Amino acid sequence: MPENQSGFARRIASEFVSTAFLLAAIVGSGIMGERLSGGNVAIALLANTIATGAALVALIFTFGPISGAHMNPVVTLAEALRIERGEDGISWSLAAGYIAAQLTGAIAGVAAANVMFGVPVLMASRHARSGGSQIFSEWIATFGLLGVIHCCAKSRPVIVPFAVGAYITSAYWFTASTSFANPAVTLARSLTNTFAGIRPADTPWFIAAQFAGAAASLFFFNWLTSPGPSQHTKAKSIYEANPDTLHGQFRA
Amino acid sequence: MPENQSGFARRIASEFVSTAFLLAAIVGSGIMGERLSGGNVAIALLANTIATGAALVALIFTFGPISGAHMNPVVTLAEALRIERGEDGISWSLAAGYIAAQLTGAIAGVAAANVMFGVPVLMASRHARSGGSQIFSEWIATFGLLGVIHCCAKSRPVIVPFAVGAYITSAYWFTASTSFANPAVTLARSLTNTFAGIRPADTPWFIAAQFAGAAASLFFFNWLTSPGPSQHTKAKSIYEANPDTLHGQFRA
Amino acid sequence: MPENQSGFARRIASEFVSTAFLLAAIVGSGIMGERLSGGNVAIALLANTIATGAALVALIFTFGPISGAHMNPVVTLAEALRIERGEDGISWSLAAGYIAAQLTGAIAGVAAANVMFGVPVLMASRHARSGGSQIFSEWIATFGLLGVIHCCAKSRPVIVPFAVGAYITSAYWFTASTSFANPAVTLARSLTNTFAGIRPADTPWFIAAQFAGAAASLFFFNWLTSPGPSQHTKAKSIYEANPDTLHGQFRA
Amino acid sequence: MPENQSGFARRIASEFVSTAFLLAAIVGSGIMGERLSGGNVAIALLANTIATGAALVALIFTFGPISGAHMNPVVTLAEALRIERGEDGISWSLAAGYIAAQLTGAIAGVAAANVMFGVPVLMASRHARSGGSQIFSEWIATFGLLGVIHCCAKSRPVIVPFAVGAYITSAYWFTASTSFANPAVTLARSLTNTFAGIRPADTPWFIAAQFAGAAASLFFFNWLTSPGPSQHTKAKSIYEANPDTLHGQFRA
Repeated sequence: MPENQSGFARRIASEFVSTAFLLAAIVGSGIMGERLSGGNVAIALLANTIATGAALVALIFTFGPISGAHMNPVVTLAEALRIERGEDGISWSLAAGYIAAQLTGAIAGVAAANVMFGVPVLMASRHARSGGSQIFSEWIATFGLLGVIHCCAKSRPVIVPFAVGAYITSAYWFTASTSFANPAVTLARSLTNTFAGIRPADTPWFIAAQFAGAAASLFFFNWLTSPGPSQHTKAKSIYEANPDTLHGQFRA
Repeated sequence: MPENQSGFARRIASEFVSTAFLLAAIVGSGIMGERLSGGNVAIALLANTIATGAALVALIFTFGPISGAHMNPVVTLAEALRIERGEDGISWSLAAGYIAAQLTGAIAGVAAANVMFGVPVLMASRHARSGGSQIFSEWIATFGLLGVIHCCAKSRPVIVPFAVGAYITSAYWFTASTSFANPAVTLARSLTNTFAGIRPADTPWFIAAQFAGAAASLFFFNWLTSPGPSQHTKAKSIYEANPDTLHGQFRA
Repeated sequence: MPENQSGFARRIASEFVSTAFLLAAIVGSGIMGERLSGGNVAIALLANTIATGAALVALIFTFGPISGAHMNPVVTLAEALRIERGEDGISWSLAAGYIAAQLTGAIAGVAAANVMFGVPVLMASRHARSGGSQIFSEWIATFGLLGVIHCCAKSRPVIVPFAVGAYITSAYWFTASTSFANPAVTLARSLTNTFAGIRPADTPWFIAAQFAGAAASLFFFNWLTSPGPSQHTKAKSIYEANPDTLHGQFRA
Repeated sequence: MPENQSGFARRIASEFVSTAFLLAAIVGSGIMGERLSGGNVAIALLANTIATGAALVALIFTFGPISGAHMNPVVTLAEALRIERGEDGISWSLAAGYIAAQLTGAIAGVAAANVMFGVPVLMASRHARSGGSQIFSEWIATFGLLGVIHCCAKSRPVIVPFAVGAYITSAYWFTASTSFANPAVTLARSLTNTFAGIRPADTPWFIAAQFAGAAASLFFFNWLTSPGPSQHTKAKSIYEANPDTLHGQFRA
């Protein structure tokens, strides 16, 4: 039906634009940080971190209600797999459209950042990011990212933007790879020879680690949050200590 | 009626004071950052960024319930255009008052910052910001800003302050122009010869790019969030995965 | 009655401990920042800013439900004046207790920070902060702070901790005085000869400016948010654009 | 019953994984910060602070609904003691499992960070942290942390992640010890000879101070928030100034 077509187009466009802005934020702030920091890489990465974390908060709040604001093929695949298990999720055909939009949007975002800062529109990166430490870092980063999204979307969807922004802010520093954790981001960042770049030759290892981390994450966090038993035996966590006052917190 | 007059006056005053504080925050933190950072521009911009982003959060929460806390003529024009389309918005006469308040409030804020830091009250800036990269950056910055406001105001108004603060925090770094994205801010910043200044001669290009970006943004995001079809075919996004737990999140 | 006594004691204790932690955060992070930053004052102030803003968020959330977490004599006086106008507020006798607790708690916090960092427990500061720029800065800082608290407490009390934390984070940088905006903080900071200190001789001018700024703020923001007329003519702000979706944001 | 077993296993796993990520964030960002900051310890600590605070926000939102996301033996002991007083809490046998998971998870997280950054998997630290200032700092840090958790969990559980993240962000700077405030964190950090490390010989004093601070905190904050009297005499705090608008804030 035309109406479904229309909704489909909007959601695809939402993934395209949100991913483009995410990459513009990552690459653009990397260039700005490197140019202004006088050679202190920590200051450049701090600027890069703050810009990326803040962009995630703004973008997920903005585009989340339209398309879910996945901006990440492994997140989209995880959503598609949910339907296989009879849960809410998205269809495989929509997932294919999302991933195409993410990949092209990511490249458009890198191009926009490169143009804004007057460097070649698209150019293969020479920034080496290889070795076991980097690969293991990507596995950890993606394992954690998918867990944060999975758990928060289940229990408190409205705070997903803050949780994801906070996680990536942290992971930029606690992983040796600065936490790409996203195949579309990885591929697109190979097309800028700047601070945030990655050599094309290094991308397959990053992406393989991301898929492996995502798979392990789905397996583990599905078990961790599976319904039924845990429903009945769930700890009275500090969040539930006093339903009355919790209820009351948004009343008085 | 006097009562309407009174409400009108309050809202105009709210736009004046909020825009004055915004400019004081931008210009004042720029001066402080530049003075203390020992020549490291990245550290100065980091301070400027954090002060501006935090000011936006505080100001929109404070003045939002009174006047909407637009603090930006293109935001006000977008609100006025809504009425044309039969949606909620503000009248053209109120919009004219808002814009006058924003322009004069912005200048008052720059003057306040200049006085606080002991530089000339108002003085034409000599800070050159020109060239295609800068203009394109302003187009991108304003396109994104209007999109964030449009989408979040539609779906989750209460988080607009966080989303706008986060977006500008990011855009200070990912655009080559440090994201003015606001004609009143642009004009007022031409009146301080400090870190945040802009040469008067460069302002027309910035403002033109801001209007063009805003127009494109309204066009695109109106389509993206148009009611009807998308209502029915909207993706089960991660925010909607489980209405019961979502509901429950503020209950237990 | 004993029960009232007990509630009174708890609230006084809450103001004492919260103000002590606030001052420990301000003074302690100032010392740590200065020691580690290798002479770059901007980096020291950035650390000081982040520590103070974050402390305010944590402390207002923690102690707000018990005593209101004023931690500031001008805030307490403003609350006492509310009762005079027939609104909710606190009694003058409770206000006296609050202010005594704030002053002594502030000194205790400075002493704790000094002890933690191995400097004299209490010692007059030699940090000069004088001149018209500083005084005017304190007027502005306090005018804004009381406005943020007044407006947010009226419209969205639950976000007061974020709004106040964000405002002070910004004001540390956009005022030339780094925004004391609090007589108890001002007096107590005269007792540490470290980064956050202020010469005892400079405190009267700071405090006078704070009282003047607070008085102007009460006058202005009472008018800005006065009930009746504004109730009927209030702008359909972006926060109110769509009550249904706003309502829905915490439901689905 | 098998179902309870299953719920028990999930909660233990949740504490293990969340604590592992917390330590990976602390240790990993410390290494990254030190490597990139060119010898400016303030910048390294700033990166370490932001990564740790953001990790706490993400981890408590993610794992809180499953196990409470204590990640800290003194928090778990405090929860177990609640049951003794007839309040909600966790059993002693579950607490034992939690603490074992926290200790082993913390070590796993340190090992993961060390592997990601290519340093020895586990190695005794030589980072001296001793003396009365450090011990007193840990007492203060833990006293405050338990108070923040206790009060916020009682009045506004949903903001605990923000309050704890903000408190630790601040305490990293306002305590001379950079606020370990957690016996599992303390022990695990003795196993990395990097920025975040602590000599094994210094850990008993830290842990003793943490237990003493926690005990004093429980004593004080139990009194401060004890039910009954305070219920009736509680101040009309700024959070309660206007129940109607407060209620309205999530409606319109």
